[in-house]
Amino acid sequence: MSKVNVNKVVVAYSGGLDTSVIIPWLKENYDCEVVAFVADVGQGYYELEGIEAKAIASGASECYVMDLKEEMVAQYINPTLKTGACYEGKYLLGTSMARPIIAKAQVEVARKVGADALCHGCTGKGNDQVRFEGAFAALAPDLKVIAPWREWDLVSREECLDYLEERNIPCSASITKIYSRDANAWHLSTEGGVLEDTWNATNADCWAWTVDPEQAPNEAEYVTLKVEKGEVVAVDGEAMTPYNALVYLNEKGAKHGVGRIDIVENRLVGMKSRGCYETPGGTIIMEALRSVEQLVLDKTSFEFREELGVKAAQLVYDGRWFTPLCNSVLAAAEELAKDVNGEVVIKLYKGQAMATQKRSDNSLYSEEFATFGADEVYDQSHADGFIRLYSLPSRIRALNAANKK
Amino acid sequence: MSKVNVNKVVVAYSGGLDTSVIIPWLKENYDCEVVAFVADVGQGYYELEGIEAKAIASGASECYVMDLKEEMVAQYINPTLKTGACYEGKYLLGTSMARPIIAKAQVEVARKVGADALCHGCTGKGNDQVRFEGAFAALAPDLKVIAPWREWDLVSREECLDYLEERNIPCSASITKIYSRDANAWHLSTEGGVLEDTWNATNADCWAWTVDPEQAPNEAEYVTLKVEKGEVVAVDGEAMTPYNALVYLNEKGAKHGVGRIDIVENRLVGMKSRGCYETPGGTIIMEALRSVEQLVLDKTSFEFREELGVKAAQLVYDGRWFTPLCNSVLAAAEELAKDVNGEVVIKLYKGQAMATQKRSDNSLYSEEFATFGADEVYDQSHADGFIRLYSLPSRIRALNAANKK
Amino acid sequence: MSKVNVNKVVVAYSGGLDTSVIIPWLKENYDCEVVAFVADVGQGYYELEGIEAKAIASGASECYVMDLKEEMVAQYINPTLKTGACYEGKYLLGTSMARPIIAKAQVEVARKVGADALCHGCTGKGNDQVRFEGAFAALAPDLKVIAPWREWDLVSREECLDYLEERNIPCSASITKIYSRDANAWHLSTEGGVLEDTWNATNADCWAWTVDPEQAPNEAEYVTLKVEKGEVVAVDGEAMTPYNALVYLNEKGAKHGVGRIDIVENRLVGMKSRGCYETPGGTIIMEALRSVEQLVLDKTSFEFREELGVKAAQLVYDGRWFTPLCNSVLAAAEELAKDVNGEVVIKLYKGQAMATQKRSDNSLYSEEFATFGADEVYDQSHADGFIRLYSLPSRIRALNAANKK
Amino acid sequence: MSKVNVNKVVVAYSGGLDTSVIIPWLKENYDCEVVAFVADVGQGYYELEGIEAKAIASGASECYVMDLKEEMVAQYINPTLKTGACYEGKYLLGTSMARPIIAKAQVEVARKVGADALCHGCTGKGNDQVRFEGAFAALAPDLKVIAPWREWDLVSREECLDYLEERNIPCSASITKIYSRDANAWHLSTEGGVLEDTWNATNADCWAWTVDPEQAPNEAEYVTLKVEKGEVVAVDGEAMTPYNALVYLNEKGAKHGVGRIDIVENRLVGMKSRGCYETPGGTIIMEALRSVEQLVLDKTSFEFREELGVKAAQLVYDGRWFTPLCNSVLAAAEELAKDVNGEVVIKLYKGQAMATQKRSDNSLYSEEFATFGADEVYDQSHADGFIRLYSLPSRIRALNAANKK
Repeated sequence: MSKVNVNKVVVAYSGGLDTSVIIPWLKENYDCEVVAFVADVGQGYYELEGIEAKAIASGASECYVMDLKEEMVAQYINPTLKTGACYEGKYLLGTSMARPIIAKAQVEVARKVGADALCHGCTGKGNDQVRFEGAFAALAPDLKVIAPWREWDLVSREECLDYLEERNIPCSASITKIYSRDANAWHLSTEGGVLEDTWNATNADCWAWTVDPEQAPNEAEYVTLKVEKGEVVAVDGEAMTPYNALVYLNEKGAKHGVGRIDIVENRLVGMKSRGCYETPGGTIIMEALRSVEQLVLDKTSFEFREELGVKAAQLVYDGRWFTPLCNSVLAAAEELAKDVNGEVVIKLYKGQAMATQKRSDNSLYSEEFATFGADEVYDQSHADGFIRLYSLPSRIRALNAANKK
Repeated sequence: MSKVNVNKVVVAYSGGLDTSVIIPWLKENYDCEVVAFVADVGQGYYELEGIEAKAIASGASECYVMDLKEEMVAQYINPTLKTGACYEGKYLLGTSMARPIIAKAQVEVARKVGADALCHGCTGKGNDQVRFEGAFAALAPDLKVIAPWREWDLVSREECLDYLEERNIPCSASITKIYSRDANAWHLSTEGGVLEDTWNATNADCWAWTVDPEQAPNEAEYVTLKVEKGEVVAVDGEAMTPYNALVYLNEKGAKHGVGRIDIVENRLVGMKSRGCYETPGGTIIMEALRSVEQLVLDKTSFEFREELGVKAAQLVYDGRWFTPLCNSVLAAAEELAKDVNGEVVIKLYKGQAMATQKRSDNSLYSEEFATFGADEVYDQSHADGFIRLYSLPSRIRALNAANKK
Repeated sequence: MSKVNVNKVVVAYSGGLDTSVIIPWLKENYDCEVVAFVADVGQGYYELEGIEAKAIASGASECYVMDLKEEMVAQYINPTLKTGACYEGKYLLGTSMARPIIAKAQVEVARKVGADALCHGCTGKGNDQVRFEGAFAALAPDLKVIAPWREWDLVSREECLDYLEERNIPCSASITKIYSRDANAWHLSTEGGVLEDTWNATNADCWAWTVDPEQAPNEAEYVTLKVEKGEVVAVDGEAMTPYNALVYLNEKGAKHGVGRIDIVENRLVGMKSRGCYETPGGTIIMEALRSVEQLVLDKTSFEFREELGVKAAQLVYDGRWFTPLCNSVLAAAEELAKDVNGEVVIKLYKGQAMATQKRSDNSLYSEEFATFGADEVYDQSHADGFIRLYSLPSRIRALNAANKK
Repeated sequence: MSKVNVNKVVVAYSGGLDTSVIIPWLKENYDCEVVAFVADVGQGYYELEGIEAKAIASGASECYVMDLKEEMVAQYINPTLKTGACYEGKYLLGTSMARPIIAKAQVEVARKVGADALCHGCTGKGNDQVRFEGAFAALAPDLKVIAPWREWDLVSREECLDYLEERNIPCSASITKIYSRDANAWHLSTEGGVLEDTWNATNADCWAWTVDPEQAPNEAEYVTLKVEKGEVVAVDGEAMTPYNALVYLNEKGAKHGVGRIDIVENRLVGMKSRGCYETPGGTIIMEALRSVEQLVLDKTSFEFREELGVKAAQLVYDGRWFTPLCNSVLAAAEELAKDVNGEVVIKLYKGQAMATQKRSDNSLYSEEFATFGADEVYDQSHADGFIRLYSLPSRIRALNAANKK
């Protein structure tokens, strides 16, 4: 493949080994200026400390660090949560939800610095390449896209380290790295190593954030979440921003071993992979939102919300965030969430987050209707007629069959 | 409402207070012979001990006890499990799945004894009346149906006890009964009492089967399930019938506090109710089946299975078992389950059942494809073309928008 | 059933035989003041002429006529059309879409006159009773509802006429009325008579609006519709209000026999019925909207729009307009319709309305991409990679199977 | 791209220009034996006449012609029809349904002759390449696949003709061919030429099978179809095989201009294209099947069948025939079709096929239930209770809202 002509490229830079190699590689192979872009999505202090200097040392002409934490939770995670999205029944989409906002911010940097290309460090076997490039196609179809992992010949960490050493670019990365990890405020994912055989159980190394449930406190702890329009607005009596609520709940959840998932999933690119995901605060929030929905959504609305969740999980996982279809599904969920107001107490204990108390001013639950023998709203005799009409097709079908005999 | 004319009625008899009242009430009010029918669906020894004598003592002319345990698991529960059905995201349908087989067996008894009517003891506010009468409409539209709770004036346990006392019918039922419970081999449900206020947490009395997770063993325990065509065929190396596997796993699960659910749900009859459900073995089985699916189902198949699960949960909950639609959904799930073969190890610990190891001869997971840089089946350069075509509509849409500016 | 206590009731009055009987019947049986409410939804001049005097003559204390035509098309029909709703694949929901706005306006009149009850003239076997009472439950749960057809003993037109004659209430209704009809600006429905046997073909009497296609002009005629955000905004070059566009297209369509449907459908109340529907302008509009969608919606969006159409058809037919679920589905469709802009030429000929030309500034169709051998956006070699990844699960599955042999 | 090593390849041969070029091109570029395979799917006498000699003259070592007509209708079309599949609301999938059986037969020939590769003549911009290669991946993942159009440099008919002339291979193809066409027993598709601008109306040349509705007979004609388990088994009183029934109805339909569709559709490969489709017999069959369903399917079953139709259309169009998901969807439809028995009269007139009479022994329609004031099965008073329970959530929600004011 002949290389495209590039003047200035903005690379999504993480400070890790591969993106450190990408900077000099881009300069050498495309003879272009390289601008580093770092998205702060809550991956943590150690990941970000000194990252600008590191980027410059690797050869970037500039390095932009953008704090996307509040926006990510408010504009990407919260709308997704209203759909109830949970990929293949388990995965809370931590990596998936972060990609669109990173791509969008990267495009903004490209526009600002007048770049004509975008570059990411995703491998050619994963979902993230599709998510980044899908977003780029929607937001900046005029910009070229460079995906070094699909282009270069480097195939191991050792070769990458050699590459940097030959160029005297300092790098603190170790030669062996057993697991591939991705972290943000919502989750931490782990792939590789022992996980590559699905018949292997995980070991302690596979988990990097949450306490092992078996080592978690013997005493349960309770948190109380206040929900408005399908979003957490306060925890334990204190109003919090979306991001701050998440951080607070992450700490509580992690302490009690909440939110560990070990899953084999279908990647968008046709293969399966196994990942361990830790989503401590997110797991608590999901339990809380679903619990308020139990009080508020009627039967058919709840069923549709479940269908929206299945759909939204696919769309978000598949990198279709910036599409009319995703907007449509989110709009439907937003509408259903209008009444999702209430308060929930969640018990945290040895890996579990379980709602123990729930209430809502919009609750359709009524002690009176559900239990008393007689009330004004519900008359038991109504059931007679309901059942007759409800089962009428079965009756006619059976009568038909009997007549034919 | 003028009473219909009835000669002989078969009543679904449980041995509890209400059905004990129903027998004499039917005789007095319909001047008919009453045949008692007891379905053994695994509700347990104490519920069934001496039940025939009790029915006769209450005035029944005959009492049929039918053992439906194996058939229930094999013909009703297993097909439902293949769909992944879980009502409103939580409830494993324990009561719902038992109703169709009970109704079907009741109709068979009615045919055998030449009855012209069927009677059940469900209240006028619940789902079970619809499930029974929906099944009756499909299976025996010619038989009359009597639902005493929608007809008589008795509104309290006290009145029911008085009713029996006046007629010298012995009854060991207590005057107070806080909770309403339903048990079978799959689950035990609890409603009423403290649960009636959704802001009340459950207390120890709300749970009658499983150990409190906080009292469960401090040591985790592991069970290994072998799955063939979406059904558990062996546990811990031993081939078992569907019912026996369930019993075995119930004991393991109950010991570790597995399978407790506290949910507010939408009843079919328009109101909400709160229930505590204990499904120890079932929760383990669901985790195992879903885990094998992770290995075996491709992306679009998995998504469809999730949609089938949402649909099937509604159908089963709503008493639509004996309908063409339910048959259709079950047939679709049966087809998908053809490849769902494998083995799963489940860890039981303090209320959780979590798959830790899984394998399958049909696994689409391949360590080689997922991880190596290069292989014969997956070439990273393929991703280029995939992404271009995959995101083509986004690209054209964005180019259109740019052109319009 | 003991009658509820009513002071003042607002009755949805049509001027026809049954609602003419209902007025005196309400006064006699509820000893209350009766206010007539007439909704002008475009049912036509002859239906509405002199209707106020007629209502008063029948005993109403007042009669309110409200012109709902523009609001019905703009606020009820247009949002529904964006979903593509077509009940059971055929029926364009003419009666269904009119009911919610009539019920809402009736409640407004009730509030204005201080009524404590609402009354409708729907029979006990149809959908409309559910649509009216469903809307009343959502909008005015405090008001009582009277449904005379489920209450009184009158069972024939003759008895109704006798009832009026005994009370000296003038009525021009004839003793025989073969068909039951419902008309508004969107459609005219016909039930009964010869249609009651599904093996009877329709005859000329079954159709009351459109020209028989066999009698329609031998020359085709063309209309050009301009669509913005999924709504018709101009026809044949002239900007029109939603209602005026519909009237204009009704005339064109009716002349060419467009929009006749003869269907057996499932009523909400469990039975089937047969209806002939004439929707001349609506059929043209549907063809136009779907045609613009062909240009604008991408593959997955189009599929979702089709699913929304199936859902919305059920919701609207089933009288669930004023529910969160309906709002949610409409919001999703509204979002998808944002790009549905364009122009369509429709050919009208002998019963058919067929789009012959279509264009849109938002079109994703590109002559260049679709046909040329090479272009900048689409490179044929991309297809290689796409197909490999797309069919990867099939390949792995087949390799697995081969390995097992 | 380096060429793979091939010994013997089976090419899907049509006798047209491109596959005539492909045979010598394969021999030259892969230095391999080329076996021609011709699928007779009802494309017609002129397409097939002398085709074996032509293949040999072009350089094929052998030519296999397989008659797939009955199998295609019975095993591929009929199962699809039960789902109601209609791609993007219009297209009856004529090309899509033929591809899997052709690919399957081609694989069978490859196995028979010991070939190690398969070749098709589909372009790199279309759906068919995905359909063929998707089937190959599922049925013969070990065989290599050659797609000349994605490989060679020929870009015009002229170059193809020159290619043959240089090699002295006779060819009767003309230098200009305005339209690209695909024909089989079910349909004939036309793309290209004047159709490439969506604002162009079609002209007479765009249609190659059916009579222009404006030239069709002025007298309507009627056909009667007998349907069993969702399949046409007899027409006009005569039992016919699936293929023969289709041929018979094609003739009738074509004569009356039935089954013309002009659509812009989303291709699987991300772009849109426009096609004219003629499906005369198929359109009649669809109308007949959907009409029997109107009598037989209850409300929820009908809705599910519509959802299955949307899904199946995508699967078939997208070349996913040989997948577990497709099997699952077909199994669901097969189940629903069990009761789809009946008889339908279809009126053919000036481009329309409209059911005028229908009946079924399984009909859930009952004149008695739908019309009389009173009957044994349906009591109008039942509607009271039905509506109360049906609208209970709306009522509670509205009462809640009122209480909050």
